[in-house]
Amino acid sequence: MNKRIVLARPAGSSPVPDDFRLEEAAIPSPGPGQVLIRVDHVSLDPYIASTLRGRHMSGGVPVGGVIPGEAVGTVIESRGDGLAVGDRVICRAGWQQFTVADIAPAAVAQGPLSLAAQKITLPDGVSYTSLLGVLGMPGLTAWAGTVKMLKPIPGDTFVVSAATGPVGATAGQLAKRMGARVVGIAGGPEKCAFAVETLGFDACIDHRDADWVANLAAACPDSIDCYYDGVGGRILEGVLGQLAVGARIVLVGMMEQYKAPAPLPGPNLVPIIKFRATVEGLVVYDHWADLPNFRRRVAPLVRDGQVIVREERVAGLEAAPDALIRLMDGGNFGKMVLDL
Amino acid sequence: MNKRIVLARPAGSSPVPDDFRLEEAAIPSPGPGQVLIRVDHVSLDPYIASTLRGRHMSGGVPVGGVIPGEAVGTVIESRGDGLAVGDRVICRAGWQQFTVADIAPAAVAQGPLSLAAQKITLPDGVSYTSLLGVLGMPGLTAWAGTVKMLKPIPGDTFVVSAATGPVGATAGQLAKRMGARVVGIAGGPEKCAFAVETLGFDACIDHRDADWVANLAAACPDSIDCYYDGVGGRILEGVLGQLAVGARIVLVGMMEQYKAPAPLPGPNLVPIIKFRATVEGLVVYDHWADLPNFRRRVAPLVRDGQVIVREERVAGLEAAPDALIRLMDGGNFGKMVLDL
Repeated sequence: MNKRIVLARPAGSSPVPDDFRLEEAAIPSPGPGQVLIRVDHVSLDPYIASTLRGRHMSGGVPVGGVIPGEAVGTVIESRGDGLAVGDRVICRAGWQQFTVADIAPAAVAQGPLSLAAQKITLPDGVSYTSLLGVLGMPGLTAWAGTVKMLKPIPGDTFVVSAATGPVGATAGQLAKRMGARVVGIAGGPEKCAFAVETLGFDACIDHRDADWVANLAAACPDSIDCYYDGVGGRILEGVLGQLAVGARIVLVGMMEQYKAPAPLPGPNLVPIIKFRATVEGLVVYDHWADLPNFRRRVAPLVRDGQVIVREERVAGLEAAPDALIRLMDGGNFGKMVLDL
Repeated sequence: MNKRIVLARPAGSSPVPDDFRLEEAAIPSPGPGQVLIRVDHVSLDPYIASTLRGRHMSGGVPVGGVIPGEAVGTVIESRGDGLAVGDRVICRAGWQQFTVADIAPAAVAQGPLSLAAQKITLPDGVSYTSLLGVLGMPGLTAWAGTVKMLKPIPGDTFVVSAATGPVGATAGQLAKRMGARVVGIAGGPEKCAFAVETLGFDACIDHRDADWVANLAAACPDSIDCYYDGVGGRILEGVLGQLAVGARIVLVGMMEQYKAPAPLPGPNLVPIIKFRATVEGLVVYDHWADLPNFRRRVAPLVRDGQVIVREERVAGLEAAPDALIRLMDGGNFGKMVLDL
């Protein structure tokens, strides 16, 4: 029989034991072009909780459906070309002992959401389970955010949250190799000691400490140039106050939002991740050198009525306080100018 | 005498009349290298309210200090080279009838915070006061965010908040000339009608309408590619939910934060502006094609112990629910792998 765990009921904010049901079913039979796989190891990742609530871009899990998850396993029956009995494969088997899967074409890189089984070519000297972690989706997530997006340069201060998880640990170690000073944020002294002593981070801050923001500041005397964040919420807030000018931030997860029973107050930043958005802060002082160029382009448009800005004129110094008060309430209509 | 308005007491969240005091002082005398200026027009801008609370990067205003602001005026006495009686100048005179200022070197572009007086070379056919608005700091702010940062391309949907203010109106009109479909967000039907009928925006949404988020969605059927935001808070939240994949956002102001009596809940995003930070959302699925390259680089580091990820192994399918629940609470320590 095939033991498997299915969703017992629509899940709430954080998963609880009653959301899951262990059941047994017949071991499925592969069709033509398919293989039967014995699942050896299943990856447990935070995104799974979101799928149980139907809130993840990889799709939701129906009640009665097998809990999803990447897995490595062994082919025990093959009815197609490309995979033979005994081959090790990676597939999205989920929480069950056996699964049937299509055989992925060898020449085509299968995306992460493919349900097809891909033959594993294990790099020398690494474990099978590393393909679920440091050399799998979590590791690729760290690689993309660190090497391709944040691109720390020597001397940068690089902060990473969830620092001992597979994403954070990999991101921090890659940043360290790129020449950054790396400061982790993690929960508890044991994780922080591991980040420094084993992962080689320069420091690691325990966010359960009431003084963690001050401790982060002490560990980042030159402010924070790069921040790799998988947590959001209060951790993100604490980091934002300590940025260096020109800081780069990658948001890869919002753990605090995912497990909140109700929407957290304040702007929900999850769409920045979902839509792969870029948010930049603008301070006009940085662009002052462009003033002559700007005026040369825009003045003719203003002269010709092609760029219009309405003015609201206010007469006399005595009228200024009320005008500013109205401006702050949106009670003005156009550019406010005080005529003396 | 020189009438002027000074800060009467430390200001609170939003300015109120009692924060200001009108007083008279002797007209100051210029020293060598200085001019005496009769102030003709003063610019009223939202940042002034932040200076009164000591919360603006241009500096705070002490109690008794003149309320700051860009101004245009006329030289009525000169004790230096480069400016003569009758010359029109721009300077940071603030809320007063007369001021003394150094003469800015003509060859050097003066920054926005300079207190020196710069001679105005008025472009053909534009008004003096436009140098405080559409051709001044607000216009440059719009130019930088739109032309240099967001760079809308033909067909983009470009949304701008505070759409009838000098920054938003200029940003939207520049985006329109760059080929974007432009949708404004403003407060009240009169402003919205002006944005469409006079500024030529494709639509403008009244954020005072309870259905404004749905109305914005209806006006942006292809989602939002660019967002120019000077407001933050609930307006930003409403826009974030409607982004297109790959959207670009420029944050230039947080009007909702500036006037709030207490810090608003949720992460305070003002530091993104203050530190000119860049925030990017990462979805690993976008980087799947890089998996072979990533593995080729990182696998040798894993093999040699130069990149370490700790695993937490959990035995048996029955243990999976509890393991996922612990993972969501941060109770795990390392990459969680379920062994079957």
